[in-house]
Amino acid sequence: MTAIDVRPSAEPRSSRGSSVDAGRPLKVALLGCGTVGSEVARLIVEQAEDLRARIGRPLELVGIAVRRAHRDRPGLDPALFTTDAQALVARPDVDLVIEVIGGLEPARSLILAALANGASVVTANKALLAADGASLFSAAEEHQVDLYFEAAVAGAIPIIRPLRESLVGDEITAVTGIVNGTTNFILDLMDTEGAGFAETLAQAQELGYAEADPTADVEGFDAAAKAAILASLAFHTRVTAADVYREGIADVSSTDIASARAIGCVVKLVALCQLSEDLGDGAGRSVSVRVHPAMIPRSHPLAGVGGAYNAVFVESRSAGRLMFYGPGAGGSPTASAVMGDLVTVARNRVRGAVGPGESTYAARRVSPIGDVTTRYHLSLEVSDVAGVLAAVAQVFAEHGVSIQTVRQQGRGDDAQLVVVTHRATDAALSATVEALRDLPSVRDVTSVMRVEGEA
Amino acid sequence: MTAIDVRPSAEPRSSRGSSVDAGRPLKVALLGCGTVGSEVARLIVEQAEDLRARIGRPLELVGIAVRRAHRDRPGLDPALFTTDAQALVARPDVDLVIEVIGGLEPARSLILAALANGASVVTANKALLAADGASLFSAAEEHQVDLYFEAAVAGAIPIIRPLRESLVGDEITAVTGIVNGTTNFILDLMDTEGAGFAETLAQAQELGYAEADPTADVEGFDAAAKAAILASLAFHTRVTAADVYREGIADVSSTDIASARAIGCVVKLVALCQLSEDLGDGAGRSVSVRVHPAMIPRSHPLAGVGGAYNAVFVESRSAGRLMFYGPGAGGSPTASAVMGDLVTVARNRVRGAVGPGESTYAARRVSPIGDVTTRYHLSLEVSDVAGVLAAVAQVFAEHGVSIQTVRQQGRGDDAQLVVVTHRATDAALSATVEALRDLPSVRDVTSVMRVEGEA
Repeated sequence: MTAIDVRPSAEPRSSRGSSVDAGRPLKVALLGCGTVGSEVARLIVEQAEDLRARIGRPLELVGIAVRRAHRDRPGLDPALFTTDAQALVARPDVDLVIEVIGGLEPARSLILAALANGASVVTANKALLAADGASLFSAAEEHQVDLYFEAAVAGAIPIIRPLRESLVGDEITAVTGIVNGTTNFILDLMDTEGAGFAETLAQAQELGYAEADPTADVEGFDAAAKAAILASLAFHTRVTAADVYREGIADVSSTDIASARAIGCVVKLVALCQLSEDLGDGAGRSVSVRVHPAMIPRSHPLAGVGGAYNAVFVESRSAGRLMFYGPGAGGSPTASAVMGDLVTVARNRVRGAVGPGESTYAARRVSPIGDVTTRYHLSLEVSDVAGVLAAVAQVFAEHGVSIQTVRQQGRGDDAQLVVVTHRATDAALSATVEALRDLPSVRDVTSVMRVEGEA
Repeated sequence: MTAIDVRPSAEPRSSRGSSVDAGRPLKVALLGCGTVGSEVARLIVEQAEDLRARIGRPLELVGIAVRRAHRDRPGLDPALFTTDAQALVARPDVDLVIEVIGGLEPARSLILAALANGASVVTANKALLAADGASLFSAAEEHQVDLYFEAAVAGAIPIIRPLRESLVGDEITAVTGIVNGTTNFILDLMDTEGAGFAETLAQAQELGYAEADPTADVEGFDAAAKAAILASLAFHTRVTAADVYREGIADVSSTDIASARAIGCVVKLVALCQLSEDLGDGAGRSVSVRVHPAMIPRSHPLAGVGGAYNAVFVESRSAGRLMFYGPGAGGSPTASAVMGDLVTVARNRVRGAVGPGESTYAARRVSPIGDVTTRYHLSLEVSDVAGVLAAVAQVFAEHGVSIQTVRQQGRGDDAQLVVVTHRATDAALSATVEALRDLPSVRDVTSVMRVEGEA
């Protein structure tokens, strides 16, 4: 680390570019003008006076990069629009760049170009941060500029700053999030209306809560990207989307949801980031990061998070249990998070400072899913013969999976066993399920779902 | 504003003090070693390696100011303790000062001395910030150092940064908080056990949830100080404790709580910070800040906040409705907030930067309580004679207070009228109550309570 002052210098230093004065506006380039981008542009224009007062300098929107320049965008000067994003981020006078295009490319190249050009960047791009945050953070560090991304996780809910700053003096042990509004809306509807997944997805699509191609949401890719970002911040460890175990909600049946209700739970798509205990085996503490549907006790704070809302539940050594709740998506909420970052990086620039960079010093190992322990709910279709329970219990015992409760439902051809286990590793549970499928008295293992969260 | 760089300078500058190197520890002075202070001291010592990694420099605890030096404090070097706080904050080598003494003096003089001495300050002192934050903030600004205070409101719950930074690009319209755990615990117990206030207070004192002298909590002074801090941040306006309308919970009866239940509400001590609509009368938008018991619909997110927990509910133009929830007090949670600030101001110092200062540019008018409008729940003991309802309704009408529902309970000497109004000003409601007391058919107005929060 190079020698640096521990006192802010009082005397003025020369400003960026050649033509300099303290009142010079900070020039903002906006990349993307969709739902979020157009709202951000509107706020920069309409809130100009408040922003100037809060920053100490005016902001000037100098360009908006779009794919098609000739769409009507009311309230915005047509002259601002350009289809040449590369040229916009290469402008020598741009101080701040906002990226709300999304996706890996061209977003990555544009952000790297902006950082290399000495601009601070505000992005909402969860996919890019989760895939390749490292190269963005190191570029920001190298060029001593800011990279802020509050909007990348849970929309308007302030969660990045709390993890990066408010709780940075604490030891975070777990972050559990409902971070995808689409899947939460669908599961909520399945719970309240008892409808199946396909039918409910169609309904969500009609209502505009799900995309025409719902894969990113429904298969958990969106939540996995957010989980990677949350885990990286919480555990001071670089976690990428590839490190995240992921299961979507396409296989969640109305039976699963009814089974959950029967044990006082709701089914949620959860993102779980956990710090393991130190087993004293010299391996140190590892982290696990996973996204999957899970049964959550109705008494858990996350169980009440309904519809398109998001919530992030944080557990830490000193602070205890915290929850952050709010709208997880939408143009306005996401724009609010972008604008908060914009003011923050603008203030940093005015003060000649940069905010916190990437912190990965802990470099914890990410456990494979097989090593992760949790509780499980299983439904088995069994032939209603004497001794089937004994045979099933025997299989669990052989694999070291301890049964907490077992319930028999129906008779004859409808005979069902519902089993809830104590904590077991994913590997042991999977082996148990395979062995159960080989049992002659077990017709089928109809559902296996994890049970998460202490009441 | 003097001309300042919009780019962080890359070249190293001379460090504080005479003997200088980049790895030099940042020296920390701790003022106060009670529940919070002792926990902070413990964490600084035990978490030294993590703190060094997160800050980029080691922290060195160089002194702890206490009233009585000769108490046994396990795990802390006795040589660190001093009863001469003035001398400690005057040390030329101290970079960071943590104030957890509380109260106005000597805390104020010590913080001002520390700031004047070029140290950044982390404080949990809500009373001082609410009484005289302005002089502290201007001293921090003058000496270009940090003043952070996440621990001053709602313990471990990150709420200061979210208001100061995450939502600084948005327009916050209301902040509603349950920010005093003692009163929340008492009201919760009264609700679940149906006991009276005095009895429940005694129980809370036995359990350690209330002080021997519970005045600050029970009379709402603690919540009012927090409300002033929240309102100042939310509305970019200087609000002091003196600006906050305050009522405690000592007069809340088990009857009030039963009445609340009867209309689907719970009674909470709430801190309400609200931005008025612009009435177009040229007066602009004003703010109202008040602390009092109120009936909250059970369906409101704040209604479920039980026991000693705190929660802050924020409504803003773009973000919508957000809630922050967690432990509101206690040594460890408060220490977590202090440590987060400590790492942040230490990082700022290492980077030669300062965080955001006070923002009061909006300078909104604070409305007197008489102008504040809300809904009210009233219980009247009336003589069970024909026409009493007409007479009562007439009084409300004469004062322009519109009745939403009225319910008659009991007969004869027990006859009661329970009235819930539509929104009315506090002034109109007070006048109505006076006039009701003059009605021959009204024996007494037994309770008047505000009804807050949309379901």
